[in-house]
Amino acid sequence: MSDISQFLIPAGFRFAATTAGLKPSGRPDFAMIVADEAASAAAMYTANRITAAPLTVDKANMAATGGRVRVVAINAGNANCAAGQAGLDAAYATCNAAAIEFGCTPDEVFPSSTGIIGVPLPAEKLISALPRIKAALGAESDHFQQVAQAILTTDLVEKTAFARLSIEGKEVRIAAVGKGSGMIHPRLVTAVPHATMLVYILTDAEIEPAVLQSMLDSAVNVGFNRISVDGDTSTNDTVLLLASGASGVKIDADHREFAAALKLVATSLARQIVADGEGVKHVVELQIQGATSDADALKVAKYIAHSPLVKTAWAGSDPNWGRLMAAIGNSGAEIDPERIDIWFGDLRICRDGGRAVELDQAAAHAYLLQSEFSIRIELNQGDGSCIFWTTDLTAEYVRINADYST
Amino acid sequence: MSDISQFLIPAGFRFAATTAGLKPSGRPDFAMIVADEAASAAAMYTANRITAAPLTVDKANMAATGGRVRVVAINAGNANCAAGQAGLDAAYATCNAAAIEFGCTPDEVFPSSTGIIGVPLPAEKLISALPRIKAALGAESDHFQQVAQAILTTDLVEKTAFARLSIEGKEVRIAAVGKGSGMIHPRLVTAVPHATMLVYILTDAEIEPAVLQSMLDSAVNVGFNRISVDGDTSTNDTVLLLASGASGVKIDADHREFAAALKLVATSLARQIVADGEGVKHVVELQIQGATSDADALKVAKYIAHSPLVKTAWAGSDPNWGRLMAAIGNSGAEIDPERIDIWFGDLRICRDGGRAVELDQAAAHAYLLQSEFSIRIELNQGDGSCIFWTTDLTAEYVRINADYST
Repeated sequence: MSDISQFLIPAGFRFAATTAGLKPSGRPDFAMIVADEAASAAAMYTANRITAAPLTVDKANMAATGGRVRVVAINAGNANCAAGQAGLDAAYATCNAAAIEFGCTPDEVFPSSTGIIGVPLPAEKLISALPRIKAALGAESDHFQQVAQAILTTDLVEKTAFARLSIEGKEVRIAAVGKGSGMIHPRLVTAVPHATMLVYILTDAEIEPAVLQSMLDSAVNVGFNRISVDGDTSTNDTVLLLASGASGVKIDADHREFAAALKLVATSLARQIVADGEGVKHVVELQIQGATSDADALKVAKYIAHSPLVKTAWAGSDPNWGRLMAAIGNSGAEIDPERIDIWFGDLRICRDGGRAVELDQAAAHAYLLQSEFSIRIELNQGDGSCIFWTTDLTAEYVRINADYST
Repeated sequence: MSDISQFLIPAGFRFAATTAGLKPSGRPDFAMIVADEAASAAAMYTANRITAAPLTVDKANMAATGGRVRVVAINAGNANCAAGQAGLDAAYATCNAAAIEFGCTPDEVFPSSTGIIGVPLPAEKLISALPRIKAALGAESDHFQQVAQAILTTDLVEKTAFARLSIEGKEVRIAAVGKGSGMIHPRLVTAVPHATMLVYILTDAEIEPAVLQSMLDSAVNVGFNRISVDGDTSTNDTVLLLASGASGVKIDADHREFAAALKLVATSLARQIVADGEGVKHVVELQIQGATSDADALKVAKYIAHSPLVKTAWAGSDPNWGRLMAAIGNSGAEIDPERIDIWFGDLRICRDGGRAVELDQAAAHAYLLQSEFSIRIELNQGDGSCIFWTTDLTAEYVRINADYST
């Protein structure tokens, strides 16, 4: 963390992490974000119908408080999902203990978990770590970075994003921290979460919960809901946005500059999650254009992003565009095969549904050797479009996931 | 081929294959099935909206003849898909030349192609091979097996299935031949095909085209539409059923014994295709029970069969049932997480949505080390059920598909 980051952390929050003993590696696995006073809060959760116990608790707590959060308690190494009543008991026990430790009500605690599904969460390990973590709390960037580190599972790098705005002569800060590498295809909705993307966005602006929720919805829909590593939507995905108000700047619903900064931070973090996807060697930006609607464009992007044959071709930098055509045909979007055009970057690959005359296999292969590249598909049906970020599917992904719990 | 198979080939058909020069390996790549007289025919094709040129021709030909086929011309090594007018021209040129060679009308020819998409098909290679293939035609099992061999692409083994029935004191035979290894998730509908499963079922019973179509629909829906290797539905999938009538036995719509035999043959071939899936080390039979409807059970099966995280866990014989729960939750089926039960074979894994108390990780791991195993999921919602066959996802699958065309 560079010195400049000292000036990036929103006021009104403290951070710490410790080792509670959930990760077999013995690395830090329990992180906390504590607001000096209960912060205004908005959250989105996975659309998976099976959700982890902490999400059930989070939804109940947010409803009870009307969107106020004092303490965010995040553990890695255990998803606390598919654990029945024992899982709920563990999440509530953590809330109760944290409430006592930090002097708030239990429903002002927001628990999150990530890791293996179906193994009971030993809440006592988290609870006994609370005094240690409280003693370690701090508001410096180093403390913030401890959170970024402790919440990782199969991630290789920490993921953070920052923005600063000058509003009415005062400084407003936004900081985001997240994790996610496999089981990444967030489908976040306002009332639900799925399993392995956790994102916490903090600001010291003063924003009412309802306004915060609306801003979060917009930012998530152009960020986290536009990425996929493996198409598996987790049972634990959660995005939480907290506003401490410590900057003294009040933001209302039509503040475009703040909303834009929030989207930038969300998109940056979303792309970092894709780039750190399990076994990923190539990050792909899909630009779908000319669909009958934005929803149809998204159908095409998702089908491509979830096709094992397309993703393995990318792993080999193989310009096998026929597999893209097959995926487009399977997507269910309105298409006319003979009007489809495809480019790899600036290279024309397909014209009117057939091989472009200027297609140069060697140049196309060379383009796909890059670690990041873009594919543009023009359907020539209408004005619908989307941008979507995804990855290749490598033998390394298989290796990572073929021995996860054994 | 054992001697017994000499008695399995339906009367009224001849077979041959040759090397037309489409496969880089130089192996046989052009096969023909020729009926002595135009056979009654029914077909189903892929639901992919982008379909290969031969399918366009097949649908037109079948409509023109009302379901009569003399010659089936199948090439491997080139899918003749996404090739525009040139692709259609190539398919029609093959039909015209075959019609002259075999003395039938061009619309009695049924072309099929499998292989790479987006590369123009050199029809002249097929056309110049026609005299060779005609000279080689024969009705023995060896000739039938030549077809089974020539239509393979990434398949490792030939796939055939046979049935014999005694009806009214006469023998009726059914023989099926197919190929398919990757891009396997057939979604066959009566008016369309998708790219890489090709199946030809022959019988010497006498059956009207409309009855044949109805029997084919039923057999496909419990066979080929219940398998998935990688979830990618091809642009070329085709199942063709031909009835020569040479046995002298007329079968009508309510003949249960024949319909049952046809389903057995279709299911056998479907399972062979899954077992020979690209890079497959484990074949999995999914038994979904207690869904609110059969359609909901199928949703669950397909979501599981298409989850990279579930499939990679199988590759590692990892009893990580939490990934099954996540897939069930994503399927969109009506579920109550706390009523879900899961068995691996006879081993109880999950009870009421949580880890079964008797779960023995070592025993579960040992069970999943087998090359074939079954997973039963009881949703406890209703009477809907399905059986579905799928596979693991291995590093070998990635290797095969990361250098397909390069």
